[in-house]
Amino acid sequence: MKHVKYGKCVRCGRTYEAVPGLTTCECGGILDIVYDYDYIRQTLTKEKLKEREHTMWRYRELLPIEEDTAPTPLRVGWSPLYEEPRLAEQLGLGRLWVKDDGQNPTASLKDRASAMAVAKAAEAGARVIACSSTGNAASSLAGNAAAAGLKTYIFVPSRAPKGKVAQLMTFGATVVSVQGSYEDTFELSKAAIDRWGWYNRNAAINPYLSEGKKTVSLEIMEQLCWQVPDYIALSVGDGCTIAGVWKGLKDLYAIGFIDKLPRLISVQAEGCCPLNRAIATGEPWRPMEENTLADSIAVGVPRNADKALMAIRESGGLVVNVSDQEIMAAQKLLGAACGVFGEPAGVTGTAGVKKLCEQGVLGRGDSVVSIVTGNGLKDVANAIKACGEPISIPGDMELLLRAFADRGIVVE
Amino acid sequence: MKHVKYGKCVRCGRTYEAVPGLTTCECGGILDIVYDYDYIRQTLTKEKLKEREHTMWRYRELLPIEEDTAPTPLRVGWSPLYEEPRLAEQLGLGRLWVKDDGQNPTASLKDRASAMAVAKAAEAGARVIACSSTGNAASSLAGNAAAAGLKTYIFVPSRAPKGKVAQLMTFGATVVSVQGSYEDTFELSKAAIDRWGWYNRNAAINPYLSEGKKTVSLEIMEQLCWQVPDYIALSVGDGCTIAGVWKGLKDLYAIGFIDKLPRLISVQAEGCCPLNRAIATGEPWRPMEENTLADSIAVGVPRNADKALMAIRESGGLVVNVSDQEIMAAQKLLGAACGVFGEPAGVTGTAGVKKLCEQGVLGRGDSVVSIVTGNGLKDVANAIKACGEPISIPGDMELLLRAFADRGIVVE
Repeated sequence: MKHVKYGKCVRCGRTYEAVPGLTTCECGGILDIVYDYDYIRQTLTKEKLKEREHTMWRYRELLPIEEDTAPTPLRVGWSPLYEEPRLAEQLGLGRLWVKDDGQNPTASLKDRASAMAVAKAAEAGARVIACSSTGNAASSLAGNAAAAGLKTYIFVPSRAPKGKVAQLMTFGATVVSVQGSYEDTFELSKAAIDRWGWYNRNAAINPYLSEGKKTVSLEIMEQLCWQVPDYIALSVGDGCTIAGVWKGLKDLYAIGFIDKLPRLISVQAEGCCPLNRAIATGEPWRPMEENTLADSIAVGVPRNADKALMAIRESGGLVVNVSDQEIMAAQKLLGAACGVFGEPAGVTGTAGVKKLCEQGVLGRGDSVVSIVTGNGLKDVANAIKACGEPISIPGDMELLLRAFADRGIVVE
Repeated sequence: MKHVKYGKCVRCGRTYEAVPGLTTCECGGILDIVYDYDYIRQTLTKEKLKEREHTMWRYRELLPIEEDTAPTPLRVGWSPLYEEPRLAEQLGLGRLWVKDDGQNPTASLKDRASAMAVAKAAEAGARVIACSSTGNAASSLAGNAAAAGLKTYIFVPSRAPKGKVAQLMTFGATVVSVQGSYEDTFELSKAAIDRWGWYNRNAAINPYLSEGKKTVSLEIMEQLCWQVPDYIALSVGDGCTIAGVWKGLKDLYAIGFIDKLPRLISVQAEGCCPLNRAIATGEPWRPMEENTLADSIAVGVPRNADKALMAIRESGGLVVNVSDQEIMAAQKLLGAACGVFGEPAGVTGTAGVKKLCEQGVLGRGDSVVSIVTGNGLKDVANAIKACGEPISIPGDMELLLRAFADRGIVVE
């Protein structure tokens, strides 16, 4: 890879050759992929981009793949970026865009990381990829690997929701449901990966995954015609996504595609906010309980804490925590105002933007992009909790009129 | 609309001015929108298309909207068309493409019809749209209308699945759950629509909806660079979608974009196949029971029967019925071979293609496009039935080895 220098430990600075099976540093730190921006500047132009397919692979000069690595089969990326003037007005914001990343093949932003894992597995000559996860990482890996003709072994704790297991099984994954804790599950997956040498799709270990995720911010900037908003807001769990978002922005700045950098808004659930707490207090992050309905960001021990905290700090970012009630309210708000149906963790970023508006931190002078990271169809049970009950009546016009009147519904 | 001549009854031939609120003919027949192809041929070129946004509105010269009607806000259309050489080989087909229309904003092909309804409602100056439905028509209407700032009133029978009701409520629809049959629900919605003059999104009544749906075949042909496959296969319930698919193909033929027409493959569930039965027997269609798990095509009394039967016959089409077991098998097949997760009705078209291959009707000489009409996340309960159970063990390597051995799993 002429455009990639090496992987560099974010903790101790040691560098490693960027081979496909790259994992973590000897010191335990996570690696960051370092690019040769001088080289990239000579090979990638905004004009060239205009000619390309609308997938994440349009940015291949900024991605850690070989020149001849084929794009993965599913159409990942180039999710819609909607400007939402009505919602901006309602919140008291200058301008607001919603990036609906639930519009990906397996319905979450995680497809970007999993497609990258599939591409790197192909480079490594691997025929099998494995991970342990209960959620979007697993389903996106199973789907993207199936499309590429690769086998997957996926380890889930026995408490994993049946629907998510069904999605994995439909994609043909060999799913091992471990009767025990998530830790037991992770350990068995690790032993199996070591034993059989499967390619490891684990965002805590594989440094290429956040490079896949960064395509979301590359797209946002291209969709905004390289005009930089004041803020980009998103939900944060493990920390890998916000680190990727920041990496993409810095890439674009380094090659001169944008002339300034936005500030990040890191939104976590009140019941599980170890990273935001670290920023707010200035102290090192410490584990927390996982008390939130937003399961995809219920991460008490974030594995990408170093990268995430660095991203928030470098960007001069804001942090804000929201309650489960505020998350559910944001789900209804995005649905009703924008026609966007996000899962709880998916809408948490927007919940944070709303809260910052109410606190007067954000206002009419600010422009914000809010990323929705996953589709509400992933978690219908919580949507039911959030949205209330319909009007229930027998089929009679008089009863309909009375029901409307009782609820103060004035028919237009 | 300079490019639209009129609406013409498919039964008696009477014509009507194409006003936005157009409904059915006095004789009860459904109207077909008739275009001025000479005019369109002068205004639309393949070159012009290349410059346009990747949504269904790129085909506006072939759609029944005014020149100044704005595209609706959600990104509907331009779903991926995947070539599937591995699956083609497995089935014994020449070439096979899968059009994944579950990749639409509310996760089904119905978004194409609902976006059209929203555009026509805007032309009509309506602020409210209504329909009665339990499924994808309702959720797509609620989502697309919310994004456009229009209110929706949606009537569902009380047996409607909670998940679908939750999606409607999230999109801010006023949902009336009618304690009674679907017929009771339909009647109350009709009375309410008549009383308040809401815009009517009902594929049995509104002739513009199948014009929205036809964009799926316009896209297929453009994505294939106007090279016509031998067959296009899809599931059929009410008949509106297959009628739309055929209309799009005839449009392209009429303006010289394609030089021949493919044959349609109409796939219905064995337990509910009134249209296929009519074709197979040569007799008029008669109502049937609705015995299939593929709820979106469980339509015993299809409202668009005239248009659908005409489409199948004109195209020299094939009909094939599949069992629920064959539908479930197709769901697993598409998931494992292609990474595409479809709902039962969504994969029914592919189940039909598989069956016709097994019967020797289709073979190595044939090229087929199979449309997947909705996302599997819409109906997780049935996916669970289809996909079987995972391996369940405590977290122990010896037990994992034994479990693999017991199941004949040979690890690569």
